[in-house]
Amino acid sequence: MANNYLAKSNTSEIPSATISRLVIYLRILEELANNDIREISSEKLATLAQGSAFQIRKDLAYFGTFGTRGAGYTVPTLLRELRRILGLTRQWNVVIIGMGRLGQALADYPRFVHYNYHLSAAVDINPELVNKEFSGLKVEDIRDLSKIIKERMVDIGFLTVPQKSAQEAADALIQAGIKGILNFSPTIITVPDNIHVETVDFLAGLKRISYYIK
Amino acid sequence: MANNYLAKSNTSEIPSATISRLVIYLRILEELANNDIREISSEKLATLAQGSAFQIRKDLAYFGTFGTRGAGYTVPTLLRELRRILGLTRQWNVVIIGMGRLGQALADYPRFVHYNYHLSAAVDINPELVNKEFSGLKVEDIRDLSKIIKERMVDIGFLTVPQKSAQEAADALIQAGIKGILNFSPTIITVPDNIHVETVDFLAGLKRISYYIK
Repeated sequence: MANNYLAKSNTSEIPSATISRLVIYLRILEELANNDIREISSEKLATLAQGSAFQIRKDLAYFGTFGTRGAGYTVPTLLRELRRILGLTRQWNVVIIGMGRLGQALADYPRFVHYNYHLSAAVDINPELVNKEFSGLKVEDIRDLSKIIKERMVDIGFLTVPQKSAQEAADALIQAGIKGILNFSPTIITVPDNIHVETVDFLAGLKRISYYIK
Repeated sequence: MANNYLAKSNTSEIPSATISRLVIYLRILEELANNDIREISSEKLATLAQGSAFQIRKDLAYFGTFGTRGAGYTVPTLLRELRRILGLTRQWNVVIIGMGRLGQALADYPRFVHYNYHLSAAVDINPELVNKEFSGLKVEDIRDLSKIIKERMVDIGFLTVPQKSAQEAADALIQAGIKGILNFSPTIITVPDNIHVETVDFLAGLKRISYYIK
């Protein structure tokens, strides 16, 4: 889900693919925990993650020693460690930029809170939307973006503006001090090296579906 | 993005992870084509895909022989082959089930058409939404779902109903003959083996962001 494939690759030593797999492991472990499963063998975890036990060990080895070779993993422990590694133990403040239908849908999405993502603000350029409230979130004027981000210590921007305004909105977010952007706009945005962009691509899953049902 | 990690794994011989990587290769090749790049070495493609040249060869080998060892790939040719493999050369008819904010946002999403996904219908249970029109798509009564799917030969359902109605809506889609579901609902749905579900998880990208900016 890296944003711009032609951009230079991440300079960190830990492969981006490892981080993506940690997110998958986390999701599997949460499902296991929800099913009151407390122990899992590395082979079973590998099967669920559609990878290999070796790959899992290698991915986790970047961050320390987890589990016992042969004996597998303790679900609550690995879950806690993955949350820590992924930075999910603190609160992240989020601004939604673009309060059209998608922005409104996101304001109503129930699972952000579960992961400590706090919707701090929502902004739009359209005066007809400003001051309206969606799921308890009042839309503010995009001209106040910089002030909002600084005062409320916002960390992440959800970019849901139309394609043609995406780059401009991203620039405004970065200018105001945002370090991470979740891009819902179906376009590529260019950002400096120190900003992390992830694109939510509705089409990736859809293309997998057409493969399987064709 | 497989839906239920605790469900039995896919019985097909081609790994699910290979299909996910084909989708990534396709996206990279489209970007290359948009930049008028006609040739790419397997090493460069591997770098862009955050994988290895060996992995790409292995993934493609399930479907035939592509490219020349050492010489790399011709972008338009590989692009065409990937589209064919992924089933993107025919039109897929889609119904949106749940025309709340997210359904409305999807009706307005410009890129589906580009990939031959045709929004055939939109249904909702809410009488206040039925007969309303969003981006040219008229909302129909969910009670007509079965008839709509059969008459318009709908292949895929976008599931955007609230969490508590997701399983029921999925069951209705399957009963009516749908073979693929793109699940936007933040919950796990259970489906028979012959139905393919992909879940759009807004949180996966978000978790990667928190790792990188923490």
